Amino acid sequence: MSNRLFSQSTGMFIAETHTDAVTWYFSVDKFLVEGKTKYQQYQIVDMPTFGKTLFLDYKIQSSLLDEYVYHESMVQPAMTLHPNPKKVLVCGGGEGSTLAHALSHNTVESATMVDLDEELIDMVKVHMPEWHRGSFDDPRTTLVHQDARKWVEDKKGENYDVILSDLPGPIEGGPALYLYTQEYFQHVAEALSDDGIFVLQSGACNETYPYCFACVHKTLESLKEHFPVVRGYYGLVTTFQMPWGFILASKKHDPLDLTPEEIAKRLEARGVTNNYYTPRFHQAMFTLPEYMIKAIDAHGRVLTDAEPFIWDA
Amino acid sequence: MSNRLFSQSTGMFIAETHTDAVTWYFSVDKFLVEGKTKYQQYQIVDMPTFGKTLFLDYKIQSSLLDEYVYHESMVQPAMTLHPNPKKVLVCGGGEGSTLAHALSHNTVESATMVDLDEELIDMVKVHMPEWHRGSFDDPRTTLVHQDARKWVEDKKGENYDVILSDLPGPIEGGPALYLYTQEYFQHVAEALSDDGIFVLQSGACNETYPYCFACVHKTLESLKEHFPVVRGYYGLVTTFQMPWGFILASKKHDPLDLTPEEIAKRLEARGVTNNYYTPRFHQAMFTLPEYMIKAIDAHGRVLTDAEPFIWDA
Amino acid sequence: MSNRLFSQSTGMFIAETHTDAVTWYFSVDKFLVEGKTKYQQYQIVDMPTFGKTLFLDYKIQSSLLDEYVYHESMVQPAMTLHPNPKKVLVCGGGEGSTLAHALSHNTVESATMVDLDEELIDMVKVHMPEWHRGSFDDPRTTLVHQDARKWVEDKKGENYDVILSDLPGPIEGGPALYLYTQEYFQHVAEALSDDGIFVLQSGACNETYPYCFACVHKTLESLKEHFPVVRGYYGLVTTFQMPWGFILASKKHDPLDLTPEEIAKRLEARGVTNNYYTPRFHQAMFTLPEYMIKAIDAHGRVLTDAEPFIWDA
Amino acid sequence: MSNRLFSQSTGMFIAETHTDAVTWYFSVDKFLVEGKTKYQQYQIVDMPTFGKTLFLDYKIQSSLLDEYVYHESMVQPAMTLHPNPKKVLVCGGGEGSTLAHALSHNTVESATMVDLDEELIDMVKVHMPEWHRGSFDDPRTTLVHQDARKWVEDKKGENYDVILSDLPGPIEGGPALYLYTQEYFQHVAEALSDDGIFVLQSGACNETYPYCFACVHKTLESLKEHFPVVRGYYGLVTTFQMPWGFILASKKHDPLDLTPEEIAKRLEARGVTNNYYTPRFHQAMFTLPEYMIKAIDAHGRVLTDAEPFIWDA
Repeated sequence: MSNRLFSQSTGMFIAETHTDAVTWYFSVDKFLVEGKTKYQQYQIVDMPTFGKTLFLDYKIQSSLLDEYVYHESMVQPAMTLHPNPKKVLVCGGGEGSTLAHALSHNTVESATMVDLDEELIDMVKVHMPEWHRGSFDDPRTTLVHQDARKWVEDKKGENYDVILSDLPGPIEGGPALYLYTQEYFQHVAEALSDDGIFVLQSGACNETYPYCFACVHKTLESLKEHFPVVRGYYGLVTTFQMPWGFILASKKHDPLDLTPEEIAKRLEARGVTNNYYTPRFHQAMFTLPEYMIKAIDAHGRVLTDAEPFIWDA
Repeated sequence: MSNRLFSQSTGMFIAETHTDAVTWYFSVDKFLVEGKTKYQQYQIVDMPTFGKTLFLDYKIQSSLLDEYVYHESMVQPAMTLHPNPKKVLVCGGGEGSTLAHALSHNTVESATMVDLDEELIDMVKVHMPEWHRGSFDDPRTTLVHQDARKWVEDKKGENYDVILSDLPGPIEGGPALYLYTQEYFQHVAEALSDDGIFVLQSGACNETYPYCFACVHKTLESLKEHFPVVRGYYGLVTTFQMPWGFILASKKHDPLDLTPEEIAKRLEARGVTNNYYTPRFHQAMFTLPEYMIKAIDAHGRVLTDAEPFIWDA
Repeated sequence: MSNRLFSQSTGMFIAETHTDAVTWYFSVDKFLVEGKTKYQQYQIVDMPTFGKTLFLDYKIQSSLLDEYVYHESMVQPAMTLHPNPKKVLVCGGGEGSTLAHALSHNTVESATMVDLDEELIDMVKVHMPEWHRGSFDDPRTTLVHQDARKWVEDKKGENYDVILSDLPGPIEGGPALYLYTQEYFQHVAEALSDDGIFVLQSGACNETYPYCFACVHKTLESLKEHFPVVRGYYGLVTTFQMPWGFILASKKHDPLDLTPEEIAKRLEARGVTNNYYTPRFHQAMFTLPEYMIKAIDAHGRVLTDAEPFIWDA
Repeated sequence: MSNRLFSQSTGMFIAETHTDAVTWYFSVDKFLVEGKTKYQQYQIVDMPTFGKTLFLDYKIQSSLLDEYVYHESMVQPAMTLHPNPKKVLVCGGGEGSTLAHALSHNTVESATMVDLDEELIDMVKVHMPEWHRGSFDDPRTTLVHQDARKWVEDKKGENYDVILSDLPGPIEGGPALYLYTQEYFQHVAEALSDDGIFVLQSGACNETYPYCFACVHKTLESLKEHFPVVRGYYGLVTTFQMPWGFILASKKHDPLDLTPEEIAKRLEARGVTNNYYTPRFHQAMFTLPEYMIKAIDAHGRVLTDAEPFIWDA
C-alpha cells in the first residue's frame, strides 16, 4: 500500500457524451446501487449539487435536484390539457415519477404502466422512493412488463384519455426503435379516445442534436387525420445540460388555447401542486426557439418501420 | 427516463467546470489562435459541431454555432424596448458582436464601447470578423480602452438611451467585481436618459448556479427609485450547456408591455433581422422558470462595494 | 518516434493525478466495495485489464494484474538478503500481501503487523483474500492497530531482523509524515538486531516526481553509523504507470553482494516461489537509472521532525 | 463575452489511451505548432514538467524532459555493440534524434535516414532543433523520403553495419504494418554486413500490452540462421507512462557479452557522452522482467506478410 500525490481534480466520475463537441464528466461522491438487467446497466449515485442520481447505460436519467422538471414536463401539460382524464397509459417511465404525476390528477380512475424491464422496476421500487412516491402501490395502478408496442397494438378501441411515452430514444438495435414510427403512432391513435392526447419525450431540444425531435415532429405531423394538433415543447432540465424536447399530439384539444386561468382552475380542482409546470409558465414551454422550428424543416423526415430513426442522420 | 446518444473520443480538449457536479471536455479539432493579454488568456479553436469558438481563461465564450443566441439575447430586447435609441454605451463586449447588434438599429447615432483589454480587441479585429462584422469601423463607433466603472462614473448626465453590460462575471480579484454593485448601478442610472434602459449579462440561469443572477436581480430591485422596472430573462445558448441569464433594468419602459406586433414593427422600421430574438419569442424569454424566481428570494442579496459578490455564496 | 494503440471509452472512471503534467482516468467496470474509515476513503473496483483493484483516497494502490510486482519488490529483497530472518515487523501494509510475503520465508517465527486503520483491515480480510492469502490467520502473526512510530519507539532492543515499511507517503497533515524522518529512522535502527535490515516504499522512481525518493535516500545516508549500507531500487509496477522506488538500509548485509546462485539457494531452502523477484532479476532492480542518481544529489535533503518532507519541494 | 465559474482542474489537454484500462489527459500550457501531413497529424506543445513535447495522431512521442531516454535506448546499445560501425541506416526516426545519436559515434562515415513523411521532417528541421541537433546538415547524412521496406529490399549486399528501425507500430492500415514481418526482417539481414546489427522499437514493455513486443521477438527468433542473437531490452521513458521495449537482432555480436569496461572504452574512443545509456546500466536494460519473458511465450507468434500483427490479438 502506498500513497501518491494528489494535486488536481481527482475522484470518481461517470463520463457521458451526447455529441462530438463535448464530453461531460459527472462527479460521483458515492456509488449507492449498481447492477445490470437483461436490458441495461444502471447506477444510482450520490452526486455533489445534483444529489441522488440515476444513470442508465452511463447516461444521466434524472437527479433529485430536478427530476420534477423532467417529469412535470413529461406529464403535466397533456394531463392538464385533457378536460377529464380518467384512463391513462404510461409507456416506459421506469423511475415511477411519470406514473406518480399521472396519478396526481384525481380524475384518474386507472393508470396502466407498461415497462419491459421488470428487474429495473423492482430495483426502483426499493431504491428510488423519492421518484415513484408510492405510485406502484396505488390501487388505480396496473403494472405490466411487456413490449409497449405489442401492448398498444392490442388495445384498439381501449379509449385511453392520455398516453404518456417516457421511453428510451430510438437508437439502432435498442428496444424503442419502433416506438417512434408512423405505424406505431397510428396504433396509438386507435388506442386513444376521441379526444385523446399522446405525448412523448423526443430528445434534445438544442442546436447540437435536434434530429430526433425534428423527425418525430414531422412524423406526427404526417398523421393529420389522426392528430390535427401537434405541438413541440421543452423543459429546462439542468441535470441534462440542455433543454429537453417533448411532442404532444392531440385529437382535439390544443395546448395553445389553454389560458393560465383555466390551467390554474383545473390543477386546483384536481388537487395537483406543481413546481415547474405552472399556469404562468405553460405558454413559454410551448414557444420553441427559432432554431428548433427551422430544424424541423431542415432535418425532419417521416419515420416508418421500414426507415426508422438513424442517430447519425 | 430517456436514452441519449453515446459517442466517444480522444484527441485535444479544453476542460471547463462551472460547478462541482460536472466538468465539460470540449473537443478541439484545431487551435487557430492562442495568446495572453495583460488580463486574460485566449484561444480561438475549431470545434466539431460548434465551429470556430473563443475561450477566455479556459471558459467557452461563444461559438459560430450560436453566438447569435447569446448576443441577440444580450442586446436586442433592450434596444427594441427603447422607442428611439440614439446613444448607446457598450461596457465590455470584446468579440464586437454586442456592438454590431446595437448598431443594427438604424436609429443609433453613436455607440461607445468601453473595454479594458486593448490587446484582446486587436486580436478580435483580425481573427473574429464573423463576430464584429465590421462594427469597429462603423463611423458611429467610438472604442475606448478603459475601466468601465471609471467611464460611467464620469458620464453623469450623458443621457445614454441604452447601456449594455457584457462583462466578465463578478469574480473575486477579477476586473469586473465592482461592476455588479448597488453603487455602480446608481452611476449607471445617472448616466442614462430619463427613459434609459440598462441590461447586463448575469450568469447561469439554472439550478446549479443561480447565485449570481439572484444577487444582481435583488440589487437592481433595491434601486426602485432609479429603476422601477427590473426584469430577468434568459437565452438558450447551446454552447454554454445551460440557459444564460440577463437582467434588464428600465426607468420607464417595461418589456412585458411589448406586443409581438409592436416588436415586429420596430424591428422592420429599424432594418433589424434577427435569428433568435423574434416578435413571437419575446414573451417566452421573459418568463423565468419557477426555480429562478424562488432562487432570487432564497439566494439573492444586495451587492455593495463593501460586500460584493462572492462566488461560493 | 513510435506509434501507440488508440482506443476509447466513456463510462465510469476514477481520476488520479501525480504531477501537473498528466491526469489518469482509470476505467471502472464495477464498484465492488466502497466505504470510508476514520483515516481514508476506499474503493475496490473491477477494472478492464487490471482486474480487481484497490483505491485509497482515489489513488490506485494495487490490482490483481500485478500486486505481486509491488509486494515482491517491497518484501523479497530484504527478506532474502537477511541470512536467517526470524522476527519481522511490518509497518502499514493494509492489503496483507506484504505480511504474506514476509511469512512466505519459512525461517520466520513471528511477524507483527502494525497498521493504524482497523476498519480498513477488517474490510481487507473479507474482500481481499487474493492479497492477504490467509496471512492474518497465520499463527506466527500478531496484528496491532496503533501508530507505527509509537510502536517502534517503544521497541528499542527488540531485535527485529527485518522491518518492512509499507506506509502512505509523507504527505503534509497525513498520518505518515513523521515516519520518514531521521529521528524515526534512528528508532528503527535501535529496534533492529545487529544485522537487521530496513526497507521502505519511497515513492515514484521517475523523472516527474523523484523528490520523495531523493530525500528519503539522503536521510538514510545521513545515518551511516546505523546503516552503513543504503541501496535504492525499484519495481516495474504496470498499474502505477511508472517505476516505483524502494530504499533498503542495512546494518551489515549488502544486496549488491548477493549472487543469483545464493538467492536461488535461499529461496529454495525457505520454500519461496516468486514471480517477479527472481535470482536473475535481483541485480537489475538495484541498478538505478542515471537520472535517479542525479536526482538524489540535486533534490535530496535530510528530513527531520522539524523539517519533514514537503510535497511541492 | 461572459465569465464563468472556475473551480476544478481545467485547461487544455491531449487525451491518449493505450489500453481499455486507463486514459491519460496530458496538460498543455501552449500549442506551439500544429498541422497535418499526408500521413499524420502533429502538435508540438509546451507542457508542465515535460516541457516541449511532440504528439503524432494524438499520441505522445517524446518530450524535452526525457527524449534522451527513448533515443539513447533506441540507438546506443546497437551502435556501441558494433566494434566499428561505419555505415548506418535509420528507418523512420522523424525527430532526428535517432540520426543524431548514430552520428555521435565518430566511426560513422555515412548515415542514411529513410522517412516517408517529408512534410513532417521539414517541420522538425525548423521547430525541433533540440532533437535533431543539426544532424540533417551533417555531411555524412543522406536523407531520403521513401517507403523503408522498398529501400531495404533494394539494398541487398549494401553491408550496413547497423540498421535502426524507429518506426510507428504495426497498426492495421498504418504505413509500418509490413515493416514488422519475417519477410521484411530477411531483407534487413541481407542488407546488413556479416556482423551487422538490427534494432527496432517494439512497443510497450509492460503487462497491459506486451503483445507487439512478444510477436516481434518471436519473429526474429524464427530467423536463427540470419540472427543467431536476439535480445529484448527496455528503456524507462517517464513520458510514456511505462517502460518501452526494443529488440536487438545481431548476426554475431551479443550485448550480453559486453562488459562495462569495454562499453566505457568504446564510448570514450568514439567521443560519445550519454545520459541514460551508461556502462553501468547496460546489463540492467537487457534484463527483462519475468512477465515479459512469459509474455513472449504466451502471446508471441511469427508475423508474416500474410499474417501481420493485429493490435487486438
